[in-house]
Amino acid sequence: MLALTFKNNTLALDPHHPEPTLPPGEALIRPTLLGVCSTDIELCKGYMNFNGILGHEFVGIVQAVANPADSHWLSKRVVGTINCPAKACDFTARGIPEHARSRTVLGILNRNGCFADRFTLPVANLLHVPDSLPDEKAVFTEPLAAAFEILTQVTIQPTDKVTILGDGRLGLLCAQVLATKSNHVQVVGKHDKKLALARSWGLKTTHLANFTPQQDQDFVVDATASDSGFPTALAATRPRGTIILKTTVATRPDAPPINLAPIVINELTVIGSRCGPFQTALDALNHPLSPIRVTDLISLTLPLSQAVEALSLAKSKDNLKILLKP
Amino acid sequence: MLALTFKNNTLALDPHHPEPTLPPGEALIRPTLLGVCSTDIELCKGYMNFNGILGHEFVGIVQAVANPADSHWLSKRVVGTINCPAKACDFTARGIPEHARSRTVLGILNRNGCFADRFTLPVANLLHVPDSLPDEKAVFTEPLAAAFEILTQVTIQPTDKVTILGDGRLGLLCAQVLATKSNHVQVVGKHDKKLALARSWGLKTTHLANFTPQQDQDFVVDATASDSGFPTALAATRPRGTIILKTTVATRPDAPPINLAPIVINELTVIGSRCGPFQTALDALNHPLSPIRVTDLISLTLPLSQAVEALSLAKSKDNLKILLKP
Repeated sequence: MLALTFKNNTLALDPHHPEPTLPPGEALIRPTLLGVCSTDIELCKGYMNFNGILGHEFVGIVQAVANPADSHWLSKRVVGTINCPAKACDFTARGIPEHARSRTVLGILNRNGCFADRFTLPVANLLHVPDSLPDEKAVFTEPLAAAFEILTQVTIQPTDKVTILGDGRLGLLCAQVLATKSNHVQVVGKHDKKLALARSWGLKTTHLANFTPQQDQDFVVDATASDSGFPTALAATRPRGTIILKTTVATRPDAPPINLAPIVINELTVIGSRCGPFQTALDALNHPLSPIRVTDLISLTLPLSQAVEALSLAKSKDNLKILLKP
Repeated sequence: MLALTFKNNTLALDPHHPEPTLPPGEALIRPTLLGVCSTDIELCKGYMNFNGILGHEFVGIVQAVANPADSHWLSKRVVGTINCPAKACDFTARGIPEHARSRTVLGILNRNGCFADRFTLPVANLLHVPDSLPDEKAVFTEPLAAAFEILTQVTIQPTDKVTILGDGRLGLLCAQVLATKSNHVQVVGKHDKKLALARSWGLKTTHLANFTPQQDQDFVVDATASDSGFPTALAATRPRGTIILKTTVATRPDAPPINLAPIVINELTVIGSRCGPFQTALDALNHPLSPIRVTDLISLTLPLSQAVEALSLAKSKDNLKILLKP
């Protein structure tokens, strides 16, 4: 089968990748639409020391299940959460299986991803996609859930000042989600076209060149995927305010030192925010009155056979979401 | 008068420092006992670009007040909070005057400190010291309040696992305070004598050489005043656990890069914690059944005339609290 692999520091399209085997409790899925995420790009820089098939954003059709008791999933259109708990541990006992010590993560940690003709995922990770929700929206479930995760971690009031640093894919999703709570959301970015898109949704935007941090924001989301984001967030957040770290960056050995003293002096709270509630995201995508616009983010849809180019295009700052069609 | 100054990168005892003038709303205080803090040492490394008289831990006697309406403070024994709000601003309006943009901070920011025969502080900052509380305990009010600040920021349960990184002055105070909430407090440090002191209070201790971070702590307090503290805290805290940053470090330009990715991957919360509730600390110091032992921390009391040596001794890892007697 066709698959996009990152192995031995090399990104390559493999037209003859072996078919996946179906482990107990899992489903074989034929993806119908795939999303390229910045994490895929970071993985190709060495983040997580990943080796295998890339990809963790998908919508697809269940083609087989290992356990006959799961056969009601057959032919169902699904999305799926990406953390796969393995053995029980202190974290699963604590009710956070998504952080299980021995977990695998689709296309990120010790598990092949979905950028392939077929892949497997535990049935427990699957969510049914309503018929009314087209693939072009459903494929955003994973990143939109990650944006909604913020609302499970902090309480944002209508009067709170919220700044999203970064006008990329995830930044714009976070901005839309947080704008459902606060009337004072601004997006700070470097790309006129992306900022214009945010303005078309009614959001305030500021070009980074004109942004002077003033320690006056109640919440600052760092969605820059850049090591310049955090120092800017420190300077923009009010005392006792909250910084939400949404993007991970492969640490460069020559990265400038980070001064953590402002966290103490200003008694800031810094919260890491990762994967989020899929059902909430699906509901938001499917609600006829939802203000969340995801299809506006689609820059291009390419066949899976052009996946290497797709990752390269996703790196370009001119593009937002690049989709892949197997 | 005698004063310990840090000016133009030079620490010096000034036997002929001009007497302070008494601004409106302030009290002239004759300190009777002073405490040396790690922040004093950091200031002498360039932290905050401080120039002036050092010192912010004191107990003393009010000798004069600028406003006759404040004359009930005369001859009273007092301690005092160190943040002095000046002009109203968005932070004072928000109810956090201790973070006011134009604030001064005793011996830290744009205000002479208390390592002198006399100094001034706004009357609004003063708290009366009960007669039953000796100077040797009252002088710990400021650092003990800083330890109690943690309990205003997080809720710690008896079953929570709590690790204090750092067996210094502040680390041991934090350990004692958090042990009033959790039954699983351990102190991790490098100094046998200090760890033995913690054990004498019934706390568990682990020598840093034998400490293997296992991502299993609900709360980790970084009280190391070292840039090695934060990476250790990241490795010791469980997913969705909390790191409390208690000490500030003057950033070294050659400091190793900090990898913030674990904050996101493990969805950690990092909270900066600074000054705390003085009345709570005074009450704890004065309560006959209080488990908090502060006088155990006193390594040495020197006359103010030996303040330069006192700061040097406070740097030595063999010592805990060094007091100064004017």
